[in-house]
Amino acid sequence: MEVLAALNLGEIAGTFSKMGMFPVFDLAYYIVSILYLKYEPGSVEVSRRSPVASWLCAMLYCFGSYILADVMLGHSPLDYFQHNSHILLASAVWYLTFYCPLNLFYKCVAFLPVKLVLVALKEVVRCRKIAAGVHHAHHAFHNGFFIMVIVGYVKGSGVALMSNFEQLLRGVWRPETNEILNMSFPTKASLYGAVLFTLQEAHWLPVGKSTLILCFTLFMATSKVVMTARHSHGSPFALVESWVCHLLFGSALGGAEEEHHHAPAPPSPLKTKEELSEGARKRKTKKAE
Amino acid sequence: MEVLAALNLGEIAGTFSKMGMFPVFDLAYYIVSILYLKYEPGSVEVSRRSPVASWLCAMLYCFGSYILADVMLGHSPLDYFQHNSHILLASAVWYLTFYCPLNLFYKCVAFLPVKLVLVALKEVVRCRKIAAGVHHAHHAFHNGFFIMVIVGYVKGSGVALMSNFEQLLRGVWRPETNEILNMSFPTKASLYGAVLFTLQEAHWLPVGKSTLILCFTLFMATSKVVMTARHSHGSPFALVESWVCHLLFGSALGGAEEEHHHAPAPPSPLKTKEELSEGARKRKTKKAE
Amino acid sequence: MEVLAALNLGEIAGTFSKMGMFPVFDLAYYIVSILYLKYEPGSVEVSRRSPVASWLCAMLYCFGSYILADVMLGHSPLDYFQHNSHILLASAVWYLTFYCPLNLFYKCVAFLPVKLVLVALKEVVRCRKIAAGVHHAHHAFHNGFFIMVIVGYVKGSGVALMSNFEQLLRGVWRPETNEILNMSFPTKASLYGAVLFTLQEAHWLPVGKSTLILCFTLFMATSKVVMTARHSHGSPFALVESWVCHLLFGSALGGAEEEHHHAPAPPSPLKTKEELSEGARKRKTKKAE
Repeated sequence: MEVLAALNLGEIAGTFSKMGMFPVFDLAYYIVSILYLKYEPGSVEVSRRSPVASWLCAMLYCFGSYILADVMLGHSPLDYFQHNSHILLASAVWYLTFYCPLNLFYKCVAFLPVKLVLVALKEVVRCRKIAAGVHHAHHAFHNGFFIMVIVGYVKGSGVALMSNFEQLLRGVWRPETNEILNMSFPTKASLYGAVLFTLQEAHWLPVGKSTLILCFTLFMATSKVVMTARHSHGSPFALVESWVCHLLFGSALGGAEEEHHHAPAPPSPLKTKEELSEGARKRKTKKAE
Repeated sequence: MEVLAALNLGEIAGTFSKMGMFPVFDLAYYIVSILYLKYEPGSVEVSRRSPVASWLCAMLYCFGSYILADVMLGHSPLDYFQHNSHILLASAVWYLTFYCPLNLFYKCVAFLPVKLVLVALKEVVRCRKIAAGVHHAHHAFHNGFFIMVIVGYVKGSGVALMSNFEQLLRGVWRPETNEILNMSFPTKASLYGAVLFTLQEAHWLPVGKSTLILCFTLFMATSKVVMTARHSHGSPFALVESWVCHLLFGSALGGAEEEHHHAPAPPSPLKTKEELSEGARKRKTKKAE
Repeated sequence: MEVLAALNLGEIAGTFSKMGMFPVFDLAYYIVSILYLKYEPGSVEVSRRSPVASWLCAMLYCFGSYILADVMLGHSPLDYFQHNSHILLASAVWYLTFYCPLNLFYKCVAFLPVKLVLVALKEVVRCRKIAAGVHHAHHAFHNGFFIMVIVGYVKGSGVALMSNFEQLLRGVWRPETNEILNMSFPTKASLYGAVLFTLQEAHWLPVGKSTLILCFTLFMATSKVVMTARHSHGSPFALVESWVCHLLFGSALGGAEEEHHHAPAPPSPLKTKEELSEGARKRKTKKAE
C-alpha cells in the first residue's frame, strides 16, 4: 500500500514535471500578469496616451523573468523574444485586456472563480521557471551555488524585482520602497524555492526533482488561491520568519505586520502590486476608464 | 523612359547605400548630437564642474545607439569604444563645443544654414544605423522579428531612449516623463523605420534594401531640415497616427496636441531635447556661459 | 650602490606583484567596505527590516568592481559569484559587522589603529584590481585604449560608481549628485591609476608593470592612511587639478573647495560615503542601534 502510493506519486510527479507549458499555462500566466498591470494606478491612462509604453510594460510583466535571468547569465536580454508565438500571444492578451470593447475580456478574467483557476495555473509556471532557472545556472556555473539561487530567484520573481524601473517607464517613481526591501509573498516563496531547488541540484536534499516540483507547485498554487480568494496578503511564512529573524538578525518579534507600524517611512497602500485588496483595485480600475 | 528612371534610381540607391560614413557624416552626427547636449539646461555648468561627467554624457550622445544595441544583443556595451579614431573625433568635437575660446566653434555650427546641412547629414547616419541594426539582429536571431524591430529602433533613437539615465549622470532626474511615454519625431520615425526595414529583411516588402534606405533617408532628412528651419516640433505622422490610435486603442481624436492638454502632468517646456525652439535654446545657452 | 638599489626594488616589486590577495588582503577589503556600508545613514535599519537587502548591499560593496567590470566586458554580472569561498567570507564579515552581539566586531575593526592597517591593506587590493582590469581589457580588446581605461577605472572605484542604484536598493534616492559629478579621492585616483596602467600596457610608459604596481600601491596606501588618520577629505591632486582644469576647461581657479560654494545645489554633508568625519559617523551609527 505504502509502496504503491510512493510509486504513484513518483509517476504523477514525473508526468507533471514533463508537461508542456505552452500554450495553456503560459496563457494563464500572461492573463494574470497583465491583469496585475491593469490594477496598477495610472496604467490605463498610459495605455491611452502611449500604446508603445503600455505594450513594453506588458512584455516586462510577461517576460521580465526571462529578461532578468538572461541578463544575470550574460546573455542577450532579448533572447526570449525570438519566440514569436509567445510574444504574439502575450500581445493579444495585452490588447484584449486594455482595449476590448465594453471591457469584456477584463470582466471575464477578473471574475473571481475564473481568476482563481488562472492564478493556480500561473503558479505552476512560476515553479517550473524556478526549477529551470536553477538548472540552467547549474549548467553554466557548475559549483556556483549563489548564482543558482540568484537565477532561480529572479526567474520566479520576474518583473517584481525590477518594478522600480518598470514604473519609471510609466512615469511613476517610488524610490522609497522596492521588492527586496518589502518582499511580497510570491517573491519570498521564489527565494525559498530557489534555495530548495539549488539544494536538490547539489544533491544535499534527498528528494527527486520532479517530486520537489510537484510539492512546491501544490504549496504555491494552494497558498495563492487561498490568498486571492480571501483577499489576504498575510504570508504563511510569517511566524517562522519572525522567530528566525529574531534569532539570527535581532529583529523585533511580532513579524512583518508590527514592523510596518514601526517603520520610519509609512508604507503607502499602493506599495506592492499584490497588496491591494480586490475591491479597491476594481474600483480604481473602473474609475480610470 | 520609365525603365531608365528605375535603373538610375537603383544605381543611385546602390551607390548611396555603399557610401562610407566615416569621417564626414559621422562628424556631422557628433556635432549635431553634442550641440543638442549643450542645449540641455545645466550641461554647461556640468562641463565646468566635472569634465569627466560632461565627456561621458557627450559619448552617450554620440555612441548611445551603439551602446544600447550592444547591450540588447548581449555584447559588451563598450564594444564600439575600440574604434579609437571615432572616439577621438567625438572627443575633439566635445572639447571644441564646450571649451573653444570665444565660443567660436559653437557659434559656427549653430549658425542656421550650417546647422541645416549638418542635420541633414545626421539623418543619413541615423537611417544607415537603423538598417545596420536590423541586419545585425537578423544575423543573430534569424526569425526574431521583434528583436529586429527593437534593435533597429534602439539604433535609430540612441541616447533619447536612455535620456533619464543620461540626465541622472548630470544630476538631473525627471521621472515623470521619458522618451517612450512622449515620443519625439526622430524616435517615432526610428520605430516606423525599424518596422519597415524588418519587413524588408523578412521579404514581406517588395522593395530592395538600398532603395528603402534611399527613400527613408530622403524622407528623414527633408522632414528634419524643414522642422529645424521652421523651429517646429509637429510630426508629419500626426494625422494618420491620430486616426489609427483612435481606431485601435480608443484614444481621443485630435492628436497629440489636444492629448497633452488633457494629460494629468503638465508637460514642461523642457521635456524633450528636440522640442525647444531655437531662440529659447540659444538664450539659455548664452546665459549659462 | 645605485644599481643594487634598483635591483632590490625590482625584486621587491616582482615579489609584491605576485603575492596572493586571498584571504588576508581580501578580508581587509571586505571589512573596510562593509564598515563604510554601516556608516551610511539608514543601513542599520535596513539590516533589521530586510536582511536580504542588506546582504545584497554588502555584496555590492565587496564585489561591485567585479560586477561592473564584467558588465562592461559583456560577461555575466554574477561571474565572480562562482567563488563560493569569497562570497562566504564576505557574508561572514557582513553578519559580524551588523549582527555581532554587543557590536563587538564593529568596535574592534573601527578602532583607529586597526582600521588604519585595514585601510592600507584595502588599497593594496584596489591597485591590483586596477592593474588586473586594464590587463583583462587589453586581452579582450587589443587596441581599445579607452576600454582599458574604463575597465580599470571601474575595477578601482567599484560600488562608488553605482552608488545611486545601491542606495535605491536601501530605499534612498539622491539624484542630485553622483560619484562622477563629485569624485571622491579614491575614485579620482582610480581614474589616474587606470590611465597610468593603460599607458604602461601600451608601452608608452618606460616602467615595468610590477614597479608601477608597487609605486602606485605605496602612494594610495600612504594617502588613504594619512587621510583616514587625519579625518581629512582633501585630495593630494587638488592643486595640480585646479591648474590643469583652469587651463584646459576654463574652470575657476581655487580648486574643488571654492567650486562647491558656487555650485547651485548645496552639497549635503552626507554626499559621499568617504566624506563623513569619523566622529560624526560613529555617533550616527551608534544612535541607529
